[in-house]
Amino acid sequence: MRWSQTFIPTMKEDPADAEIPSHKLMLRAGLIRQLMAGAYTYLPLGYRALRKAENIVRQEMDNAGAVELFMPALQPIELFERTGRINSFGNVLIKFEVTRRGNKVPMALGPTHEEVVTDLIARHISSYRQLPLTVYQIQTKFRNEERPRFGVLRTSEFLMKDAYSFSTSVEQLDDAYRKMYDAYVRIFARCGLEAIPVEAESGPIGGDASHEFMIPASAGEDSILRCRDCGYGANVERAETGRKRAKAAPPAADAKGIAEIATPGAGSIDAVCKALKCKPHKMIKTLIYKADDKTVAVLIRGDHDANENKIRRALGAKTVELADEATILAVTGAPTGFAGPVGIKCDIIADHDIPLLQAAITGANKVDAHFVNVCLGRDYQLPVTAEGDYETFDLRNAAADDPCPRSAGKLELVHGIEVGHVFKLGTKYTVALDATFLDEKEQRHPIIMGCYGIGVNRIIAGLAETKHDENGLIWPMSVAPYEVLVVPLNVTDPQVMEAAEKIYTQLKGQGVDVLMDDRDARPGFKLKDADLIGIPLRVVIGGKGLKDGVAEIKWRTAADPVLIKLDMTVNEVTQMVKTARQ
Amino acid sequence: MRWSQTFIPTMKEDPADAEIPSHKLMLRAGLIRQLMAGAYTYLPLGYRALRKAENIVRQEMDNAGAVELFMPALQPIELFERTGRINSFGNVLIKFEVTRRGNKVPMALGPTHEEVVTDLIARHISSYRQLPLTVYQIQTKFRNEERPRFGVLRTSEFLMKDAYSFSTSVEQLDDAYRKMYDAYVRIFARCGLEAIPVEAESGPIGGDASHEFMIPASAGEDSILRCRDCGYGANVERAETGRKRAKAAPPAADAKGIAEIATPGAGSIDAVCKALKCKPHKMIKTLIYKADDKTVAVLIRGDHDANENKIRRALGAKTVELADEATILAVTGAPTGFAGPVGIKCDIIADHDIPLLQAAITGANKVDAHFVNVCLGRDYQLPVTAEGDYETFDLRNAAADDPCPRSAGKLELVHGIEVGHVFKLGTKYTVALDATFLDEKEQRHPIIMGCYGIGVNRIIAGLAETKHDENGLIWPMSVAPYEVLVVPLNVTDPQVMEAAEKIYTQLKGQGVDVLMDDRDARPGFKLKDADLIGIPLRVVIGGKGLKDGVAEIKWRTAADPVLIKLDMTVNEVTQMVKTARQ
Repeated sequence: MRWSQTFIPTMKEDPADAEIPSHKLMLRAGLIRQLMAGAYTYLPLGYRALRKAENIVRQEMDNAGAVELFMPALQPIELFERTGRINSFGNVLIKFEVTRRGNKVPMALGPTHEEVVTDLIARHISSYRQLPLTVYQIQTKFRNEERPRFGVLRTSEFLMKDAYSFSTSVEQLDDAYRKMYDAYVRIFARCGLEAIPVEAESGPIGGDASHEFMIPASAGEDSILRCRDCGYGANVERAETGRKRAKAAPPAADAKGIAEIATPGAGSIDAVCKALKCKPHKMIKTLIYKADDKTVAVLIRGDHDANENKIRRALGAKTVELADEATILAVTGAPTGFAGPVGIKCDIIADHDIPLLQAAITGANKVDAHFVNVCLGRDYQLPVTAEGDYETFDLRNAAADDPCPRSAGKLELVHGIEVGHVFKLGTKYTVALDATFLDEKEQRHPIIMGCYGIGVNRIIAGLAETKHDENGLIWPMSVAPYEVLVVPLNVTDPQVMEAAEKIYTQLKGQGVDVLMDDRDARPGFKLKDADLIGIPLRVVIGGKGLKDGVAEIKWRTAADPVLIKLDMTVNEVTQMVKTARQ
Repeated sequence: MRWSQTFIPTMKEDPADAEIPSHKLMLRAGLIRQLMAGAYTYLPLGYRALRKAENIVRQEMDNAGAVELFMPALQPIELFERTGRINSFGNVLIKFEVTRRGNKVPMALGPTHEEVVTDLIARHISSYRQLPLTVYQIQTKFRNEERPRFGVLRTSEFLMKDAYSFSTSVEQLDDAYRKMYDAYVRIFARCGLEAIPVEAESGPIGGDASHEFMIPASAGEDSILRCRDCGYGANVERAETGRKRAKAAPPAADAKGIAEIATPGAGSIDAVCKALKCKPHKMIKTLIYKADDKTVAVLIRGDHDANENKIRRALGAKTVELADEATILAVTGAPTGFAGPVGIKCDIIADHDIPLLQAAITGANKVDAHFVNVCLGRDYQLPVTAEGDYETFDLRNAAADDPCPRSAGKLELVHGIEVGHVFKLGTKYTVALDATFLDEKEQRHPIIMGCYGIGVNRIIAGLAETKHDENGLIWPMSVAPYEVLVVPLNVTDPQVMEAAEKIYTQLKGQGVDVLMDDRDARPGFKLKDADLIGIPLRVVIGGKGLKDGVAEIKWRTAADPVLIKLDMTVNEVTQMVKTARQ
């Protein structure tokens, strides 16, 4: 392609409204333009990169045995009502009515396709013989974004690869999941992205197997914890701490006695700290939960965040939710904000950090009052295991500097851009939409599902965000809009153009994806644009080099060019491209 | 691909709700499934065909020098207000509001992208040096269909290739138009479709250059007229008739005298025919038009349909529309329904067929009255040209059996499915959206546009509609979901499967797109499905053939198979496929 015949509107200055590097560079390099908040046009250069990423995704999906189909963006509201997602999506689901022959027909624009695909499978699959099956599509999704931002990272319309697996057993699901997980690892590696799989919270089936693929980046909106020593990584919701149970021990002989202190109106950790001039990590936060039908007090250190999934699992409950005011009053004798373990009228479950708290501060189960110098084993009790440890649990979100659960390392908190998610869905949708199969014994069961998503736009934005320097983008060969940029320095010089045209034409003949900057512009301007758009290999023709019979070949990442004889250039460059493609 | 590992839900019987062959066959062959009225899922087999068609479209667009980009489906309402299309689309445009931070944001789903692309070009192109440019995208379009029907032929969501050319002159536009026209001819030919280009009505710029590409098919919703002799073709709106002007001549000596007859309440052709027991082709239909600011009576034979574009051109007017009641009363002295040329108080313009009408019946310009035996040259006059002809014009829609305008042949009326349209838009959108360029002399002009659409789904539906027999679909090699179907007759026979697996694997190794029906089912059932899904080449392995060391190879369209030695099968089939690809 000749630059003059395509449409690459590069910009010299950073656009005022772009905050993060990828957004600035994708605008400046002429990859995208905003149509309105949350909707971007992919210009020719950007769309070439997007399609290359899309094709890598498609190849790996096909290799993993997934079958491609294509479902409508327009979806009947009724399916969302049956699964309840009409409520859980809320304002994110784009809903409207069309008028047909005087009748109003309600519809939604697909935010994903769990409902549609499950409905399809429910209608056409009835026997274990037809399973397992994994289908996928690469399709535009629609979600109303309250605050569209960061260029194509967060938009109301985006290209997604969504796959859905259908299995008869947890073993089949595990197999489908593993294939998708492995494909994702290959996809991101082939796209030149350092996407790390981190554990994520999963549904009731499939245990610990849900993973997000994250690109570490300061602009990322997700927080993940990872251990540099062993590679363990998880999102904040899911990350375990490496804390262990402590040996049960009698209270220290010199422990100060418990004392009640008036804390009028101080019903939060912050307020108590202010009133008593203490730090949150000296406090026990006592949260009253309803776990299924049982009321339980959960003890967490004052500076930590309770994690309801961990609490649910520790209690072996199906659901947990914070108790209502009446329940809190019943078990503590006080309104919310003054609960504590001393004398509370329900079971207690404590986080691993609680036994380490000496002379703690907690609510006094009495309005406007707290205890100080609260001592485990004297003022309140925790169960002790057969091994002689306090029976504590991991009940809170992990935080930076927590010990790693897998090694002797420490966790660090990093920000990430989520580019993929693999998830064991279980039977949530198949039960709601009646997708069942008959097993070998003619017994009916709900089909077991997994779902697997990749944000294709985010592959491109993630590359722009993490692969650039102060001069512009740095594309990997696999996803670069073009593999080679040929730059004749002076297009009005027939000798320069003859040499450039020859190399351009011959490179195309070798199957190399080549762009020629045939604009009549100053060399400095063209080389600046070359760096900005970040094509991996640059071939400069003209100037002193041409007189010496050589072309200047430079990797985008190299400091200096290599000089290669003109008649060797095509072979050399073709070889370099082929090697870099792998 | 193995049949057991993909998802091809074939159906034995015609589905009750499908009316036309393509709809029935696409459902039965497992290509599509309806999600709701106007929205279909493409199942794996259908989607493979669709993507092959899409890729042919993309290759030919690239070869024609068009540059691919990708615009959002979500569009701001404001652009449609600026071009006025918010009104002309009416109920077809899907409009809604989303809520962002408490604010309502109105949007539309793109029915096409003239507005968006013109706005993009307006922002980034300012000089003749940046033109010409043709951009295209292959993208999902949304249009509310009052009556979605005929499977994927008429849906509310469909895949469209839409291209837009931007030029500085009519010559540049002509060049862009020609490139697109030629590319369309190649695209449909490569897809195995007999799409014929017919002339279509065009805008004020570009004269006669707007073409629709039509697949002749009885289920087609468009009517076209074409001449078998010379190949002339046009849609009904555009088709010329071969009628010529007649020599002016004095009325026949024995012509009966004009007479007024009471026709109470008979204000339509049908009513007058009933009242007077005459045929419509004996009547003169007198239509009163406003042409720009002038009132004109248009004379058309009673059985013909007036064509407003032809009338507009004959009058050299910018706009024509039927006159209002008051104007009709003013020039005829009667309400609508009783106009005639005799004594009318405005200019008259007549269709070529009018002078041929002897003793015609027309309105009497008097309520509830008509004239019979109306005679041109005696009772009313028409202008006569220098050549001595009545100055008549082609003012009506052409009809079956009209003489061809280009040859001595006759026109025939056929139904067609529109698969493409190329159109010289002119400056309608560029003026409305302020897309201008500076010429060599720094003068500002509106950019001149063309637009070019292909309904990609209709390529597939058009093939299904026109390429099938009583047993099922018949795919061309280029768009077939798979090129070869390998059918082991008995999958429980290890010898059969060994031979089949070998051929399947080796064909894949040769780059042949192959499907193997590895289902454990009766041979008759599998061969029926083979005919139904219509893969071009079928390789049957098993039975007596296998004992003789041969495979049965059969084109979908052939009556009988050819026997080929097992060890020659892969080479033979590969060769057959390669030849058929071209």
